[in-house]
Amino acid sequence: MDPDAVAKAFVDHYYSTFDANRAGLASLYQEGSMLTFEGEKILGSQNIVTKLTNLPFQQCQHRITTVDCQPSGPAGGMLVFVSGNLQLGGEQHALKFSQMFHLMPIPQGSFYVLNDIFRLNYA
Amino acid sequence: MDPDAVAKAFVDHYYSTFDANRAGLASLYQEGSMLTFEGEKILGSQNIVTKLTNLPFQQCQHRITTVDCQPSGPAGGMLVFVSGNLQLGGEQHALKFSQMFHLMPIPQGSFYVLNDIFRLNYA
Repeated sequence: MDPDAVAKAFVDHYYSTFDANRAGLASLYQEGSMLTFEGEKILGSQNIVTKLTNLPFQQCQHRITTVDCQPSGPAGGMLVFVSGNLQLGGEQHALKFSQMFHLMPIPQGSFYVLNDIFRLNYA
Repeated sequence: MDPDAVAKAFVDHYYSTFDANRAGLASLYQEGSMLTFEGEKILGSQNIVTKLTNLPFQQCQHRITTVDCQPSGPAGGMLVFVSGNLQLGGEQHALKFSQMFHLMPIPQGSFYVLNDIFRLNYA
């Protein structure tokens, strides 16, 4: 399958799940997964989802501006680099963000998120 | 050595070289290195440096806002995620950018850039 199509499909799935039901992201991470969220490092699927579900907003909508991807090496991983806007419920202005994912293959023919780094792009 | 210190040292070296002498970046890439620059994919050290040296500005200065890093897996690689501002010579306003690097170890105890993805963050 075309890597760019895989990256796009992952990104669509990730953010639609995030916006609808953050707890549903748990299956995309594993024990060794790491999230760096605004500089804070969080290790493991359960801790990552706890962090994401406890973010101080209820409703949000991600709108994606760009998706770039590259193979990450011989292990079959893929780097996905995203920029976009994050609209929080009740807020007038959207926040700009950048995020990168390092996806690693799993035997079922899919991927999990080994690395995830998120930053807001302040004006 | 502390991974965050390695990442910070790499970032300082990379952007000071970029701003002083872009051709000097060639030694940081290898044949299998890939750059995605504003969506354009470029493969290999020589092509990457040709792209960077032919960017349509002469003087520039990167100012770094954030540097995040994570280990990228068992091969000893490191992911470095940067946000900052890019001031071009003669321009009034700086451009915001985000960039990620996937560094892989080389036998001499240093790293080379396997993956590099750059995006301007338009307002």
